[in-house]
Amino acid sequence: MAQLLKGKDVSDALTARLTADVDELKKQGIHPCLAILRVGERGDDISYEKGAMKRCEAAGVLVRNFVYPETISQSELMETIVQINQDAGIHGLLLFRPLPSHLDEKAVMEVLDPAKDVDGITPASMAGVYAGSEVGFPPCTPRACMEILEYYDIDLTGKKVAVIGRSLVVGKPAAMMVMKKNGTVTVCHTKTLHMEEITREADVLLVAAGKSETIGRDFVREGQIVLDVGIHLREDGSICGDVNFAEVEPVVEAITPVPGGVGTVTTGVLVLQVVEAAVRQSRG
Amino acid sequence: MAQLLKGKDVSDALTARLTADVDELKKQGIHPCLAILRVGERGDDISYEKGAMKRCEAAGVLVRNFVYPETISQSELMETIVQINQDAGIHGLLLFRPLPSHLDEKAVMEVLDPAKDVDGITPASMAGVYAGSEVGFPPCTPRACMEILEYYDIDLTGKKVAVIGRSLVVGKPAAMMVMKKNGTVTVCHTKTLHMEEITREADVLLVAAGKSETIGRDFVREGQIVLDVGIHLREDGSICGDVNFAEVEPVVEAITPVPGGVGTVTTGVLVLQVVEAAVRQSRG
Repeated sequence: MAQLLKGKDVSDALTARLTADVDELKKQGIHPCLAILRVGERGDDISYEKGAMKRCEAAGVLVRNFVYPETISQSELMETIVQINQDAGIHGLLLFRPLPSHLDEKAVMEVLDPAKDVDGITPASMAGVYAGSEVGFPPCTPRACMEILEYYDIDLTGKKVAVIGRSLVVGKPAAMMVMKKNGTVTVCHTKTLHMEEITREADVLLVAAGKSETIGRDFVREGQIVLDVGIHLREDGSICGDVNFAEVEPVVEAITPVPGGVGTVTTGVLVLQVVEAAVRQSRG
Repeated sequence: MAQLLKGKDVSDALTARLTADVDELKKQGIHPCLAILRVGERGDDISYEKGAMKRCEAAGVLVRNFVYPETISQSELMETIVQINQDAGIHGLLLFRPLPSHLDEKAVMEVLDPAKDVDGITPASMAGVYAGSEVGFPPCTPRACMEILEYYDIDLTGKKVAVIGRSLVVGKPAAMMVMKKNGTVTVCHTKTLHMEEITREADVLLVAAGKSETIGRDFVREGQIVLDVGIHLREDGSICGDVNFAEVEPVVEAITPVPGGVGTVTTGVLVLQVVEAAVRQSRG
């Protein structure tokens, strides 16, 4: 029976950590505020938005919603971003992607002020994660993984970490963060051969394969820590991750459940980054 | 006896590849030009500068030298970069670093136009390497490694690649390039435990440890490809790499010599990137 690395505990601890900063900001007359920009009515976006709003409320962070129809033009959208950049009352932006195909997502991402890029989508934030410097912010999901490890006192120094996935949203930034924490990272992906041999050698698995229940018994051994980033809907309506929990959980030392694992911490990190953005902006 | 992956052959092939592009540019009245900016009279810089100038000449690329005393002020240096940005006759800049300690290197790097950043030092270039997109340019040394592999028909798809070193100049960009070429990369560094076990598992070693002759017999096995990025001066005046060549060469399948390996290709890549910059700039 593996230890369950529950996201709620981590997320609650994050919120508690924020309270002092939020109180200090409010004394200065600053009310940390997240702008959420949604184009269209995608169900996933709406449910993530609800979760983020609830988490913001719990932490005393304001939310301003910008909702547009799918027919919004590029120039209207760009103008909204410029407005958000200029609005001193907004400290961070969450922009749902992908945008409808007639919109140039790259141009939108490039116009956002990195200081407000709490979801880590601007080139400056990417360069920051890559260089290990505090420019912009990292994407929330890989940071959520790091916060889970920190909460459960799992030090990566000298550990072998296998990251499965090489996306800009999870795999690559996670690899950078592991390096910064002195772990020895191996990045596996769809072209990796004998992946199960590599993952069995690792001390920590960070799974962002993007495929439901793809990491089974053969990929793991005793003593490992497994972080599962995936969230998928099974045909029967239940939710599962990238890891085959039923096969893996009895073998490893600790594992994040799905639901209730990494995903739960991701909104907590989003709120944390809004408050960090407000603190940085208050220092000018 | 390992095959020697000689840099000169690769560099000559790069130059030959450039000739058509340079001729085409000249027909349009564009003469590709590299600015070399050196502060002070460090011997390493001067010898690299000489090599780069020779290589530029061979490829029909102009060089403009900007040489300043160590006493140059931040504002003078920044002004020079702005001038280079604005000068349509200059297509790329090589800036020697580290700069003297009274200068803010980061500010200098940030003001350079990424379109002219042929040595990959701006945040935009870093984001480009990280994201795998064609923004700015990668640092020359890791690209030299990739050019060597390409010249010798070594496909990284599905291969295990151990990168030793996590610097922004070599290790990290090399790791990104290996991922882009579908290799499975492991990044080793000073905190990695049992590094020799990891490197022996790899098909390709890319060594940028920054320590002279540190990779010896224990780190390698038969059949491997070894790229040695290091250049060090021994006490007797001879030159060696990060790899103990005498121990490793008899074991592995192929290895870059030092001198005459990766370093020789690095200036070739610099010139290649000047021409690529000129081509991109000619397209507006």
